[in-house]
Amino acid sequence: MTKACGIVALLTDYGQQDGYAGIMKGAILSANPKARIIDLTHDIPPQDIAEGGRVLAAALPHFPDGTVFVAVIDPGVGSDRAILGVETDRHWVLAPDNGLLTQLNCWGRLQRIVSIRESKYFRKPVSRTFHGRDIFAPVAGLLSKGGNLSRFGPTVNQLEHLPDFGPHRTPKGWQGKVVSIDRFGNLITDIPETLLPDPRHIRIAVGRTRLDTLSRSYSEARKGGLLAIVGSTGYLEISVNQGNASKSARVRRGDRVLVTRR
Amino acid sequence: MTKACGIVALLTDYGQQDGYAGIMKGAILSANPKARIIDLTHDIPPQDIAEGGRVLAAALPHFPDGTVFVAVIDPGVGSDRAILGVETDRHWVLAPDNGLLTQLNCWGRLQRIVSIRESKYFRKPVSRTFHGRDIFAPVAGLLSKGGNLSRFGPTVNQLEHLPDFGPHRTPKGWQGKVVSIDRFGNLITDIPETLLPDPRHIRIAVGRTRLDTLSRSYSEARKGGLLAIVGSTGYLEISVNQGNASKSARVRRGDRVLVTRR
Amino acid sequence: MTKACGIVALLTDYGQQDGYAGIMKGAILSANPKARIIDLTHDIPPQDIAEGGRVLAAALPHFPDGTVFVAVIDPGVGSDRAILGVETDRHWVLAPDNGLLTQLNCWGRLQRIVSIRESKYFRKPVSRTFHGRDIFAPVAGLLSKGGNLSRFGPTVNQLEHLPDFGPHRTPKGWQGKVVSIDRFGNLITDIPETLLPDPRHIRIAVGRTRLDTLSRSYSEARKGGLLAIVGSTGYLEISVNQGNASKSARVRRGDRVLVTRR
Repeated sequence: MTKACGIVALLTDYGQQDGYAGIMKGAILSANPKARIIDLTHDIPPQDIAEGGRVLAAALPHFPDGTVFVAVIDPGVGSDRAILGVETDRHWVLAPDNGLLTQLNCWGRLQRIVSIRESKYFRKPVSRTFHGRDIFAPVAGLLSKGGNLSRFGPTVNQLEHLPDFGPHRTPKGWQGKVVSIDRFGNLITDIPETLLPDPRHIRIAVGRTRLDTLSRSYSEARKGGLLAIVGSTGYLEISVNQGNASKSARVRRGDRVLVTRR
Repeated sequence: MTKACGIVALLTDYGQQDGYAGIMKGAILSANPKARIIDLTHDIPPQDIAEGGRVLAAALPHFPDGTVFVAVIDPGVGSDRAILGVETDRHWVLAPDNGLLTQLNCWGRLQRIVSIRESKYFRKPVSRTFHGRDIFAPVAGLLSKGGNLSRFGPTVNQLEHLPDFGPHRTPKGWQGKVVSIDRFGNLITDIPETLLPDPRHIRIAVGRTRLDTLSRSYSEARKGGLLAIVGSTGYLEISVNQGNASKSARVRRGDRVLVTRR
Repeated sequence: MTKACGIVALLTDYGQQDGYAGIMKGAILSANPKARIIDLTHDIPPQDIAEGGRVLAAALPHFPDGTVFVAVIDPGVGSDRAILGVETDRHWVLAPDNGLLTQLNCWGRLQRIVSIRESKYFRKPVSRTFHGRDIFAPVAGLLSKGGNLSRFGPTVNQLEHLPDFGPHRTPKGWQGKVVSIDRFGNLITDIPETLLPDPRHIRIAVGRTRLDTLSRSYSEARKGGLLAIVGSTGYLEISVNQGNASKSARVRRGDRVLVTRR
């Protein structure tokens, strides 16, 4: 196990205008005034567990050993859903047990999962609507001072997974979907590079668009032209060179993507 | 009085796209390169003093002793409005004297209020449009190195208050209003828990909605159902379990809320 | 040359919702776990090099000596555009060579410009779509530990400039444009204070608005009234006292501004 480095990285759907993210930072600093807080993002769409899990999985490998991640997309706050603490060979992650940890297998070697229940570490009284402040924050602050996870609750062996996660096989290839459309209009799919056929024989279909080349950079297409590319996190993306693929291809999040061999 | 902890927490209506918040951070760091800057929020609606004061009051108690808060919602910048520095038993707060400090009484034991006037501490020349950079930032940086507030100006005994602040009594209970609608569509009122009648006899009216139960968590309502709950900052809120109360109840900010005993 | 102070200030068009900015922060911290990261802004409009350069130039002077700036507005990512490292007497700046450095002359005494090419410092494999993570971040992290720029590549003597940058002379004065409209609706022009005629004889024309006074503060105009003022970064702005000039004057970004002597 690695040593805590004092960095606490936050991923939430709290947005920025209501102060919730700021309040959570205050509560972390109250538990560890030396914590160094990094805003990963607070702008996951409200209650969008799948998108939160995707961004968390993309970000996690790039942070230093000993980082504590706090991921709060938590539509079930105040219900009996558990709060989990995960320890890998490099990091700690705190998250509600609602599918946000579906991509756990991408994070490194798993050491332990505990159910965060030891209420003596929580802020009192624990509200029923803001566990980010009352449970996640003090636990994250304490973990960032020195990471003994097992003091916060019992080990568990099961966790929630998202239904319908990932692409599935078809007779001629793979069917996935557009899981996210980024600020630049890139269509990010859930089809990893490892499932793609030989680029010389690839065919990609999304909406009314058909592509039979896998580009290596945006600039291989003419300005404004659609292209397929393996994005920075290792998944197939549809992009437009210096443009917006979402507008050009009239594709929406959730739309089907087919990859076949031709 | 507490010792400065080096943390400077920022609350503004500067937004994020124009660089104003970033410039203010640079100016704070120029005064104290060791300051640890926390973004509380920069997305208070432009010139919305009431909402800025509400978020500040909600956040303040959760920050460590010795934090310096800088609150800049300042439509009167460049006029003769004063800039105030407040010292409580735990924190310092800098803010324009325009009602942003109306909820001062929630912040802890007040020690001192000064009018920030000692221009030798300001960036020169002081612009007429960006006191965040030229006055608030250098003063905050200096305070965060060691908090002697009185060097910045004379003590004052009065400050501006928001008109029409808070709920008022009616023959049968209390009338307040929806003071904020958060990212999740929760309707946040200005009626504190302490004014609510016995939950067994409560009646709440907002828009066309009538509720006669006070829920203890979102999950006590069916999915999509409206409910009343005491929110995380101690005020009555109207919410929808896993949904958006603002859309469901067709209520807007400023709308009247009535709480009576039935 | 100044010493690195450990601060890394970020200016991008990555937005906040996709995690790109957060991932870049992780990669900087992986190169220098003690780096102190400041978000200048991530909300420059997508691929808007002119606006990114404007905000960078406005912010740079206000940061402490030894700050490393990372400016990534990079529509040409993955093409053969260079990545430049600039050293002034006070700061370092990393940016793609696409015009983002057009205002370099405002930044202080230039010491050196290098083309960042030494790939042994990059994250491997270098993606073709996210140099912020794979090149800018590790180089910024290393620079922030101690700033020897020349190790990253050869010195260069030329860089890209934006076409049509800045105002130009007319027979009777200067013609510029509205280069940005900020969150408050202020119309920011590219006409610096140094080009304005004597305020007693000034005439300003933008859209259908004519102004012949240069105000010294917003409060010199009546509430809701249009006014011209030198903004906080030294450029002519058109504003409304406690209102929104963009809405009042029906002016859009790019619209022409004429300043003449009357």
